[in-house]
Amino acid sequence: MKFQARFDGYADKVRNSFDQQSLMRTFGAKMVHIEPGGSTITAPILPGHRQQHDFAHAGLTFALGDSAAGYAALSLMEEAAEVLTVEMKINLLAPAEGDMLVAKGRVIKSGRRLIVVGAEVLAIRNGAETAVALLQGTMIPIT
Amino acid sequence: MKFQARFDGYADKVRNSFDQQSLMRTFGAKMVHIEPGGSTITAPILPGHRQQHDFAHAGLTFALGDSAAGYAALSLMEEAAEVLTVEMKINLLAPAEGDMLVAKGRVIKSGRRLIVVGAEVLAIRNGAETAVALLQGTMIPIT
Amino acid sequence: MKFQARFDGYADKVRNSFDQQSLMRTFGAKMVHIEPGGSTITAPILPGHRQQHDFAHAGLTFALGDSAAGYAALSLMEEAAEVLTVEMKINLLAPAEGDMLVAKGRVIKSGRRLIVVGAEVLAIRNGAETAVALLQGTMIPIT
Amino acid sequence: MKFQARFDGYADKVRNSFDQQSLMRTFGAKMVHIEPGGSTITAPILPGHRQQHDFAHAGLTFALGDSAAGYAALSLMEEAAEVLTVEMKINLLAPAEGDMLVAKGRVIKSGRRLIVVGAEVLAIRNGAETAVALLQGTMIPIT
Repeated sequence: MKFQARFDGYADKVRNSFDQQSLMRTFGAKMVHIEPGGSTITAPILPGHRQQHDFAHAGLTFALGDSAAGYAALSLMEEAAEVLTVEMKINLLAPAEGDMLVAKGRVIKSGRRLIVVGAEVLAIRNGAETAVALLQGTMIPIT
Repeated sequence: MKFQARFDGYADKVRNSFDQQSLMRTFGAKMVHIEPGGSTITAPILPGHRQQHDFAHAGLTFALGDSAAGYAALSLMEEAAEVLTVEMKINLLAPAEGDMLVAKGRVIKSGRRLIVVGAEVLAIRNGAETAVALLQGTMIPIT
Repeated sequence: MKFQARFDGYADKVRNSFDQQSLMRTFGAKMVHIEPGGSTITAPILPGHRQQHDFAHAGLTFALGDSAAGYAALSLMEEAAEVLTVEMKINLLAPAEGDMLVAKGRVIKSGRRLIVVGAEVLAIRNGAETAVALLQGTMIPIT
Repeated sequence: MKFQARFDGYADKVRNSFDQQSLMRTFGAKMVHIEPGGSTITAPILPGHRQQHDFAHAGLTFALGDSAAGYAALSLMEEAAEVLTVEMKINLLAPAEGDMLVAKGRVIKSGRRLIVVGAEVLAIRNGAETAVALLQGTMIPIT
């Protein structure tokens, strides 16, 4: 599905908001792609962000997927609007083992009052990628 | 509902597993209570774990709620078993504003093959608590 | 948590809306209790509403739980407002075996723009009740 | 993603199970397509299966989506195995207005112990289709 941004500076607005999330800095996360209705965030699986088996903690996986989905939604909002997560469901598909996570967020349905979003999170290990999580949720615009 | 642990050392096993989660250390999280079928985890809302409005990031809220729910499930497992999150749904009830988060996890239904769990996350601000998230999900035992 | 209705006729409004849902009639469902922030719906497990093992179909369980949650939300709305389900998550706890289902819906958080709700569905078999499903979701008011 | 059935008669097994679900008959539902990892179910929006605005009731939408997802999972199981829904999340995208619903279920990840599934439900109105719901959930094989 194709979406259109409502103003030219949507990508800068998204990146500015991302840069203000201190947790994304703590995670070493980068926004590597933004388009109307989609965003991609990557982060290394650092030693301090793991669970008891040295895989990425589900909290890291969730944070990246939720943020990628949220910024996909934000890319379609009016200039003055922001978005908040209403609810998010995550299915964990495989252990998040590897060097890096890649979260790809996308807008599924952009309504006036709510935006339905999804995200997929991949783990990169020795150059091969494995889908580790699938998210589906709802964002709300706030002005 | 009342649950019974399957062996005496369940609390030590849970605390040992918690101590091995490096993300919990990074978050400054503490397991402050464990009982058969329930656990409570707290963490300060540190400057590095926030979203763009200086509230706790949903990734932090989720990580604490998911972990509290997972350790509630682990408290009921056999000595050799661990648990993994299959899926988790979070509804965000209010901005996570304050000094500290408290996540209370509990087992809803403990089956042989799956454990249904829930968690509530509260934010503490100037001594007053606000419910900021409600989680419902599924854990699977692994041996 | 205690909630207050916004006008005296809230119970009549809820019952009128329920009576207009033809699927509830098809299911033989009855609204047996309504209070501010809560509702209870019952339905027999009829021969035509089952899955392949003669248990209640998850579609029936969901329909009753979603409706009980929705009417719990509606009980708190302004006189002119209705509610729609935004999203709903259901965990199935046990096979829905027996003669009747009882769905108890409740409001968890009533916001200006969204209402977070929950529901529990019980199966009644030979007078004993078993929890068969737990729902958590979001309603939106429409005017 | 491509999946392979584990035995030749998978489609007959799925159709036999579907035919035994009395709720699907009550709904006038038909299984119109089955392939390894996917299934499509249609049903008319009959007068007796509606909510208070004469749209399809969310209970009908859920039942079709959950069944399409479940049969997508069943198509990949061993001959002697069945599947049960563990949990299912539905986001409602638009009012289910029209003559017919079409539910397309698919397997996202087929594991040994759990199967992650998704479904999309479309409403057909005057020949035009609208996405009305998106489901994401978990099935468990039983033998």
